[in-house]
Amino acid sequence: MNGAVTYDDVVLAAARIEPYVHRTPVFTSKYLDSLSDATVFLKAENLQKIGAFKARGAVNAVLSLSEEDAQRGVATHSSGNHGQAVAYACAIRGIPATIVMPEHAPPVKVAAVEGYGATVVTCPQSERERVLAHIVATSHAVVVHPFDDLSVIAGQGTASLELVDQVDSLDVIITPSGGGGLLSGTTVVASTLGIRAVGAEPEIVDDSYRSLRDGFRYPATGAVSVGDGLLTGIGQIAFEMLNRAAVDILTVSESEIVYAMGMLAERTKLVVEPSGATGVAALIRYASQFSGKRIGVILSGGNVDLARFAATD
Amino acid sequence: MNGAVTYDDVVLAAARIEPYVHRTPVFTSKYLDSLSDATVFLKAENLQKIGAFKARGAVNAVLSLSEEDAQRGVATHSSGNHGQAVAYACAIRGIPATIVMPEHAPPVKVAAVEGYGATVVTCPQSERERVLAHIVATSHAVVVHPFDDLSVIAGQGTASLELVDQVDSLDVIITPSGGGGLLSGTTVVASTLGIRAVGAEPEIVDDSYRSLRDGFRYPATGAVSVGDGLLTGIGQIAFEMLNRAAVDILTVSESEIVYAMGMLAERTKLVVEPSGATGVAALIRYASQFSGKRIGVILSGGNVDLARFAATD
Repeated sequence: MNGAVTYDDVVLAAARIEPYVHRTPVFTSKYLDSLSDATVFLKAENLQKIGAFKARGAVNAVLSLSEEDAQRGVATHSSGNHGQAVAYACAIRGIPATIVMPEHAPPVKVAAVEGYGATVVTCPQSERERVLAHIVATSHAVVVHPFDDLSVIAGQGTASLELVDQVDSLDVIITPSGGGGLLSGTTVVASTLGIRAVGAEPEIVDDSYRSLRDGFRYPATGAVSVGDGLLTGIGQIAFEMLNRAAVDILTVSESEIVYAMGMLAERTKLVVEPSGATGVAALIRYASQFSGKRIGVILSGGNVDLARFAATD
Repeated sequence: MNGAVTYDDVVLAAARIEPYVHRTPVFTSKYLDSLSDATVFLKAENLQKIGAFKARGAVNAVLSLSEEDAQRGVATHSSGNHGQAVAYACAIRGIPATIVMPEHAPPVKVAAVEGYGATVVTCPQSERERVLAHIVATSHAVVVHPFDDLSVIAGQGTASLELVDQVDSLDVIITPSGGGGLLSGTTVVASTLGIRAVGAEPEIVDDSYRSLRDGFRYPATGAVSVGDGLLTGIGQIAFEMLNRAAVDILTVSESEIVYAMGMLAERTKLVVEPSGATGVAALIRYASQFSGKRIGVILSGGNVDLARFAATD
């Protein structure tokens, strides 16, 4: 692959990762349909391996490594789902993984990564790039970036490839946008099939929105959103792919995200993390754009501290 | 039907309700398997219509009414899932439903019942029997009891009938026990197929446990458990059926229930109400009984105030 991800790349990725990821189910909710005046299909990637779509991209990237590269092992830094996803992918391939995590990461997250046999190195959050560089310099490990990577993007696209196989005649697919990997992979599938792809982003960290509006890649705002998986700035590859495809980003407020998360728990009985509920928040806020249409929304993950749910009641 | 429910009654119920209820999925969790040293299959009745297995029994009971009885309409009292289930069942059949609810019932629950077109009558909780009797005396409505009813029990049994179709070679099926309707229906299916049925009950409201141990039907303890769907005393029909089948009841603490609910949210991404998590709590506490076996557990419902989740973290 070079420069951009194609539909065929996503199809190949799907075949490659199929033994190792779940074909996640699609949920519907009459209540959500009535809220949005649309017919809505929720792709439950919160039920994916490691609790998030990130398993798709990481598994595709690690399985795509040459045998020579693979034997060097993989390293990355992550405080969230990508670390678990890489650890899981490396366990599948039987190669070493080193995950740099913040020193105050919840013990349950550290244990989850270690549970896949990965080595965890903790450091102050501000030191993570330096620590990762040191690991790479000494071990020659390959870095699998969480989103600015063609194989990762192709892997994330497989969620939509499944969705269009499960649901006929979608008009729109909405996904959250942080680094833009999921949205880019979704766009590849959607545009090939004449479906509109839409990104959803917390307005407090709206760098994707502004970047695509102004044609200039802004850095992360540095603000903190409940959508803690979406704080990162948009990646270079995603920026180029989304810019070329003229993808719209819709921004939502913090309270709209929290409402969507609570509504999903109440109506669909699914635990969805705030980042993962952002697409539903956008669907509800911008319902007039989607009226009468068939809308797929990717619930991107379910790894949330349970106390977070208290705030939604 | 008279006296007891048979396997054929459950099979007929399944055919009768099939167009109106979900065939709920079965979830697995390697983490739960490791906790219990068993192979565990979770029947997700929290994803059932109205968010609980109660839809099965109520639909079967209402569809089983003679045309003459049905035209009189149905009445019941309920502060929980049974009220919604009866309202849903009557909407299917196109007959009037009147649900007596506590005057302080959450507006969302009242709205849910009214959403199915039922009439809600509110009154102080202590007046509910008198108010229901008055409604029946004046309207001649038929009362559908939440558990002490053969058609309801046959309907509840359909959850296990589905489960044994979805999963081969189960050794045990565990369900919560409140009034005993679900456990009785489960026992009919299980005993016919040589599977052990086990009830799970909060120890603070352990009337089912003591009733079956002593061969005497004790009333509800009057205590309050987080398993708020299990506060009622065991029904007469359930008592007789479970006594005859020598079914075991396993009791669990409040904190074990809360732990199970949180663990299910974290590991399976499912919202399960405390009552619905009681079977999993029993599986974990009494793991030595289940070691090496294939265990079905019915997650009976998912209708929980989200604030409840805060306490599990």
